[in-house]
Amino acid sequence: MDVTSRLEWHPLLKDPTACRSVKPRTSGKTMVMDKGMGLHAFEDLLQTSAPYIDLLKIGFGTTPLYPTGLLKRKLELARQNQIAIMPGGTFLEVAVAQGAVPDFFDTIRLLGFSAVEVSDGTIELERNLRNELIHRGRDSGLTVFTEYGKKLWGSTIDVEQLLETVLIDVQQGATLVTIEARESGTGVGIFDANGLCRDEELHCIVSQLPDPGRILWEAPQKQQQIYLLKALGSSVNLGNIAPHDIYSLESLRRGLRSDTFQFPQK
Amino acid sequence: MDVTSRLEWHPLLKDPTACRSVKPRTSGKTMVMDKGMGLHAFEDLLQTSAPYIDLLKIGFGTTPLYPTGLLKRKLELARQNQIAIMPGGTFLEVAVAQGAVPDFFDTIRLLGFSAVEVSDGTIELERNLRNELIHRGRDSGLTVFTEYGKKLWGSTIDVEQLLETVLIDVQQGATLVTIEARESGTGVGIFDANGLCRDEELHCIVSQLPDPGRILWEAPQKQQQIYLLKALGSSVNLGNIAPHDIYSLESLRRGLRSDTFQFPQK
Amino acid sequence: MDVTSRLEWHPLLKDPTACRSVKPRTSGKTMVMDKGMGLHAFEDLLQTSAPYIDLLKIGFGTTPLYPTGLLKRKLELARQNQIAIMPGGTFLEVAVAQGAVPDFFDTIRLLGFSAVEVSDGTIELERNLRNELIHRGRDSGLTVFTEYGKKLWGSTIDVEQLLETVLIDVQQGATLVTIEARESGTGVGIFDANGLCRDEELHCIVSQLPDPGRILWEAPQKQQQIYLLKALGSSVNLGNIAPHDIYSLESLRRGLRSDTFQFPQK
Repeated sequence: MDVTSRLEWHPLLKDPTACRSVKPRTSGKTMVMDKGMGLHAFEDLLQTSAPYIDLLKIGFGTTPLYPTGLLKRKLELARQNQIAIMPGGTFLEVAVAQGAVPDFFDTIRLLGFSAVEVSDGTIELERNLRNELIHRGRDSGLTVFTEYGKKLWGSTIDVEQLLETVLIDVQQGATLVTIEARESGTGVGIFDANGLCRDEELHCIVSQLPDPGRILWEAPQKQQQIYLLKALGSSVNLGNIAPHDIYSLESLRRGLRSDTFQFPQK
Repeated sequence: MDVTSRLEWHPLLKDPTACRSVKPRTSGKTMVMDKGMGLHAFEDLLQTSAPYIDLLKIGFGTTPLYPTGLLKRKLELARQNQIAIMPGGTFLEVAVAQGAVPDFFDTIRLLGFSAVEVSDGTIELERNLRNELIHRGRDSGLTVFTEYGKKLWGSTIDVEQLLETVLIDVQQGATLVTIEARESGTGVGIFDANGLCRDEELHCIVSQLPDPGRILWEAPQKQQQIYLLKALGSSVNLGNIAPHDIYSLESLRRGLRSDTFQFPQK
Repeated sequence: MDVTSRLEWHPLLKDPTACRSVKPRTSGKTMVMDKGMGLHAFEDLLQTSAPYIDLLKIGFGTTPLYPTGLLKRKLELARQNQIAIMPGGTFLEVAVAQGAVPDFFDTIRLLGFSAVEVSDGTIELERNLRNELIHRGRDSGLTVFTEYGKKLWGSTIDVEQLLETVLIDVQQGATLVTIEARESGTGVGIFDANGLCRDEELHCIVSQLPDPGRILWEAPQKQQQIYLLKALGSSVNLGNIAPHDIYSLESLRRGLRSDTFQFPQK
C-alpha cells in the first residue's frame, strides 16, 4: 500500500493538503473513540486512516472485556502506525474507586498502552490524587491526557475552574486536556441538550487560555466538528470521533466537504 | 486467542466480573440484531464478543437475501460459539401470509438455524396457529422465542393481554418472550415517541408476572438499556442490540461505564 | 460463494422476489454512499450485497484521502461486481473552483472510476459549464449522473427549475439526475428539518416529469425510503444509502420488512 503517495498523486490536490500537517502533529490532532472494534475493522481503519489519527481511546471501561491477545495486537498495531492509545478515563476511575491504582498502571503498561487519561467524569478526585495520577502516568512512560468535565446529563462548565485545571494539569505534566462531551455530545460540557455549542462559554474559555492549543475538544457530532473548525480553525484538536467518521472529519479539515468548502482558499 | 484468560488477567477486575454469569446463561442474556453483516464483520464480532452474546437474530426478513453459502457459514460460526441464532419474526410472518409454514421450517432447519421467533408484529395470529408454530419449532429441534407487540408506530401494550400471552406461550414451550421495540426503539411497546420508557406500564408488567426473567426486552437505545438495567437489575435480558454496541452494553452491565458506575459496589 | 443460488433456494421465496429485477437494472437502482470503507468492509459489502447495489459513491471529496493502491483496488472490485462507481460531486466542484477540470477527469479515469457526478451543491455552475462537464464525462467514457439541489441547510426545491434541469441534463447525456438530500436527509431538498418528505412538492415534481424514472432520490433515512417506496413504487431509484442499511432497504423493496409487508401481494 503506497501510503506515502497518497494526496501527492495529482496537482489538483495540492491546495487542500496545504492546510494539514503530518504526524507527529503538534496541532490538528484527531482522537478516535473505539467501542470494541475487532481486528478486521481495526486493520481497515489503519489502512485507510492511519495518517489522520493521532490518538485512539479504548472507550470507557471496555479494556478488560477484550481477549488479552486481541487487545495486545491492537495496541501493537496502533504503535506501529504512530497512534497513541489509551484506555478510557472511566477505567482508571474504576481503579481509583476500588483502591487499585498501582495495579491499574502495571496492567496497562504490560498490555502495551502508550497513553493514559486522567479524568473525574464520574468520581470526585482531589487535586493531590489528580497530581499523583499524572505523575504515575509519566513515571510509567505514558503520555498523559487529562480531562475536564462531568459525565452527568446537564453538566455544564465552570469556566474559572476549567482554566485553573488546564493550567495546573499542564504544569504537572499533562500533554493535552480533553473537554468532556461523551459519546453522544449532548447535554454535557460546552454542548446543550440538542448538541449545539454554547457560543459564549466557548469564546470565554478560548480567549482566557494562554495556549488554547492545549485543549482537545470532544466533538462526536458532525455539526460540532464543523462549528469548532469554523470557530477555532482547521487545526483544532478534536476527539471522540467515531471510526466511520474519520474520512468525513478529514474532508472537513481540508475543505473537501461542502460545509467547509472555503477552507483551502484561505 | 486466549479467550478464557480474559477478565481474569488482573485482580483489579475481580469485582466488576462478579456480577456476571457465563454462558449458557439463565439470566442476563444479550440478543444482537444482525442487519446483514458480512464474514469479516461477523468474525470480528465473535472474536471480541462471543462470551457476551447469547442470541443473534438475522433481522426482519433478510434471511433469503444472503448467498446461501455465506449464511450457512454464519450459522455454523454462531453454533461453534454457543450463540443461538434465529431469523427475524417477520420472515415467519411472511411464510404464514403465503401459506408456506411447513416450507419455512424445513428451510431454516436445513440452513442451520438453532432457534425461531414466533411473532405477530405485522399479521394477525390466532392463538391456535400461534400454539402450532411454537410446537412446530420445538418439533424441529429449535429453541422457541415468542414476541409480544405490534410494529405499527404508536402501538402500545395491553398489560393484561401481555401477561396472558407470556403465560400461555411459556406453557406451550417458549423459552423466552420478547417485548417488541423494533430497530429504532421509538413509538412502540413500552417506549414512547422519544424512546423513553413508560414507567408505570413497566412496573405493572413486572410486578404481575410470576417470573419476569422470562422476558427479553428489546432495547436498542443506550438510554433504554440503562433504564432497564437500573430498574430491573444488571442481569435483565436485553435484545435488538446493535453489534457495535455490545461492548458498551457489557460495560454497563459490569459497572464499567459512568451511567452504572455503582453496579459492582452493590 | 454460490451467489447465483440465492433467493432461488426455496419456493417460499418465489413471491417476494417477483417484484425485483436483476442487474443491469433500468429501474429500482440502489446507490450506496461510502464514507471511507476499508478493504475488509468493502469485501463484506460485495459478498453480501453486490446483487442489490447498482452504484456506489466515494462520498464528498474523500477520493484523495485514500492510499492510491487501496482506492484502485476498491474501484476494481466494484467493476468486477457490476457496480458503477463515482466520486462525490463535491470533489468535482473542488476541481471547478481550483480551475483544474481537465486534471480532474484525467485523474479519475486513471484511478478507474466508471462514473462521475456533476453537481452544484456548493458552487454556482453556469449551464454552459454544466453542459461541458457532462460532455467531458461522456467523452472520458464515464456514465454521467447529475444532481439537482443545494447542500445549504434549509435549501428547498424550485420545481420549475428542477424540471428544466432534468430535461436539459438528460438531453445533454446524463443517465440519471440525483435529488440532493445529503448524508443526513434533513433540512434539504424534498425533506424538512425533521426529515419528513414535503408531499406536495414530491407530487408536483413526479406528475410533471415526462419520465420520473430518470430521478435518483437521495433518501438516507429509513422513514424516507419507506415513504418513497410507498409513494412511487418498489422500483424507485434510491441513493445515499448507508452500507449497513442495504439489507434493510432490500427487505423493504421485497416486502420482507413490516413497513412494506403488503408489497409482494400486490
